Amino acid sequence: MPPSFGTMLARLREKRPLIHHITNDVVTHITANATLAAGASPIMAKALEEVEEVARQVDGLVLNIGTLTPAQVEAMKAAGKAAKERGIPIVLDPVGYGFTALRTQATHELLSEVKPTVIRGNQGEIGLLAGGKAAVKGVEGRGDDPQEMDRLTIELAKREQAVVAMTGPEDRISDGERLLVLKRGHPAMATITGSGCMATAVVASWVAAFPEDPLWATAGALAAFSLAGEKAAAHSRGLGSFTAELLDALAALTPEELDSLEAEIHERSL
Amino acid sequence: MPPSFGTMLARLREKRPLIHHITNDVVTHITANATLAAGASPIMAKALEEVEEVARQVDGLVLNIGTLTPAQVEAMKAAGKAAKERGIPIVLDPVGYGFTALRTQATHELLSEVKPTVIRGNQGEIGLLAGGKAAVKGVEGRGDDPQEMDRLTIELAKREQAVVAMTGPEDRISDGERLLVLKRGHPAMATITGSGCMATAVVASWVAAFPEDPLWATAGALAAFSLAGEKAAAHSRGLGSFTAELLDALAALTPEELDSLEAEIHERSL
Amino acid sequence: MPPSFGTMLARLREKRPLIHHITNDVVTHITANATLAAGASPIMAKALEEVEEVARQVDGLVLNIGTLTPAQVEAMKAAGKAAKERGIPIVLDPVGYGFTALRTQATHELLSEVKPTVIRGNQGEIGLLAGGKAAVKGVEGRGDDPQEMDRLTIELAKREQAVVAMTGPEDRISDGERLLVLKRGHPAMATITGSGCMATAVVASWVAAFPEDPLWATAGALAAFSLAGEKAAAHSRGLGSFTAELLDALAALTPEELDSLEAEIHERSL
Repeated sequence: MPPSFGTMLARLREKRPLIHHITNDVVTHITANATLAAGASPIMAKALEEVEEVARQVDGLVLNIGTLTPAQVEAMKAAGKAAKERGIPIVLDPVGYGFTALRTQATHELLSEVKPTVIRGNQGEIGLLAGGKAAVKGVEGRGDDPQEMDRLTIELAKREQAVVAMTGPEDRISDGERLLVLKRGHPAMATITGSGCMATAVVASWVAAFPEDPLWATAGALAAFSLAGEKAAAHSRGLGSFTAELLDALAALTPEELDSLEAEIHERSL
Repeated sequence: MPPSFGTMLARLREKRPLIHHITNDVVTHITANATLAAGASPIMAKALEEVEEVARQVDGLVLNIGTLTPAQVEAMKAAGKAAKERGIPIVLDPVGYGFTALRTQATHELLSEVKPTVIRGNQGEIGLLAGGKAAVKGVEGRGDDPQEMDRLTIELAKREQAVVAMTGPEDRISDGERLLVLKRGHPAMATITGSGCMATAVVASWVAAFPEDPLWATAGALAAFSLAGEKAAAHSRGLGSFTAELLDALAALTPEELDSLEAEIHERSL
Repeated sequence: MPPSFGTMLARLREKRPLIHHITNDVVTHITANATLAAGASPIMAKALEEVEEVARQVDGLVLNIGTLTPAQVEAMKAAGKAAKERGIPIVLDPVGYGFTALRTQATHELLSEVKPTVIRGNQGEIGLLAGGKAAVKGVEGRGDDPQEMDRLTIELAKREQAVVAMTGPEDRISDGERLLVLKRGHPAMATITGSGCMATAVVASWVAAFPEDPLWATAGALAAFSLAGEKAAAHSRGLGSFTAELLDALAALTPEELDSLEAEIHERSL
């Protein structure tokens, strides 16, 4: 039995894990801030010459392929292996998987060489990666059939021996055996750039604090992020202010309100 | 007779074109958000290994040279040619043209090899590019003589067979024959980083939705952006909050209020 | 006797110096905006092919190693030497000094080859660089012993013949002989990404406007930034909105209120 989400949040803020991000150009600033708002501390480092050294000194590693280059793939592999050797959790965000050969191939290389602890993507990315036929439009893929989405999430988790989080109107989280589902959040989250990447940063913060239970840590992270999204939407005036409100709300979450969400998570079986 | 700006805005939001940005480090996040606020969808991709593949799957391409490197010039050429082959509109933003040899030469290479559909810059950039003697201070060049600015805009459009938008206190838009002028917007827009780059992203969104009429699409885009700037300035407290307000206002524009601006656009002849 | 801080602020805004930033991926946008809010004008340029040409046309240069690569080190050296030849002030921000060999070595190379005018860092970075044993956690190092911090600041300034600013709950500024101390600012400033980098941008803006007195220009810059932080914290709702509020407050400072802070700066001797 894992601790409650509220207890986990309090411990995360106390531990303040250090998260190394190798990420895309668009979200460096907001994911650094999302890491802080989640209760962790970010370090961005990308050069092959220093990523292993960084990855050895941190508590978690984010690999986000949103503006990938071949040099970045090498840095991700080097950092990933260094993190793996020390048992540091790794979260992969396969942004735009399926959109280009570079992204598709890099994702497969990272899966086989780095073996991430958690894979977080949207319905299109996770669906395609699991072998589904979901269409991916740009970096905002959408799937339709809930049962198919359940199945693809579980299968990918089983195949990659990782926790898989498929986020969207419903968040699905699986370790290949269990499937946790949470239907919270707000449509405004889909209107801004980088909300998926922010979710990944929050997941990495939680998993770095609770490496012994990546399934529930991921669920807690997504519950926290969804709740922050709802609260931000309640007093936001549009997509410009929403990003700031989302960070404000995330940092201001209390353990108590997060506990109340935990009861809404239900486990589905196939 | 093109459709009204309001009608165009409604159609743009319905079509939701996908825009590929190869852009500068400073504005990746806000121009992705500006693309969303305009009604389109952004994808950022920069590696030579994937830009052609991306450019073939999108509806519009932005080339912004604000933090240029030689490798980026190559990626811009490759993406530009791939877009051109498929008839996808390309918008060039020659940030800091004239400030360094790298930027000046790259701009000329992109003009001759990629032949952009639209060139959007400030008075200094467009003036210099057209052969004028406008001084460029940093990336915020200013021109003085309105008739000279008219002439330079038209001449550059004629020479490059492109739509040229020279933005500033007055926005001038020409296809080499007609010159459209709109005097809206707000001085606050000149106080923030990247408002020109945001304007370019909005122009690309409109032109991608209406490739058959890049002159009026550019005019509509700049009318929308100017109106959003005015509305944002009305309740902003400074340059930090203004950027967010600008995105909020852009996303919230209604077709009706945009239509009312169309009557203010006047055509000037030399 | 230098002019008052208020007088300096008014002159800075009038001069509007142009600042070249070679900086990290996380803060490009906010430090460009911080430069504008401070009263200066930013230009970001990073390619070896253009940095010397840029550095020769500006009034100040920022070198920030927060997401360093070997290619960036070369660009920093080239720009630094070009700036030095023309007597343009250079501000070095050794982000994460001591965290990796790449950062440590690059900092020492930049110190010996470029000889920055000002070095601004947090307690961990400046402490370590001065030879102290302050621990650096990520990029948010903290020191404990006030007298030791005083001594390290002065010693580094003496050793590098530069103005050194160690910022934190107390800001210490030394030219190797005098030590100025200011205890203002707000804890919220430590909760956001890039507040140190923003401080560096503000310092560069002031020092570019007053190259004849980098010690007092740095003190004035940090007084302005601290006061803006306090004002922003008074009506911010969290770390997302705080960054925008900080920029708003910085741009809105009046010479009068800044003058009132000058009296609080005290000089300490060892």
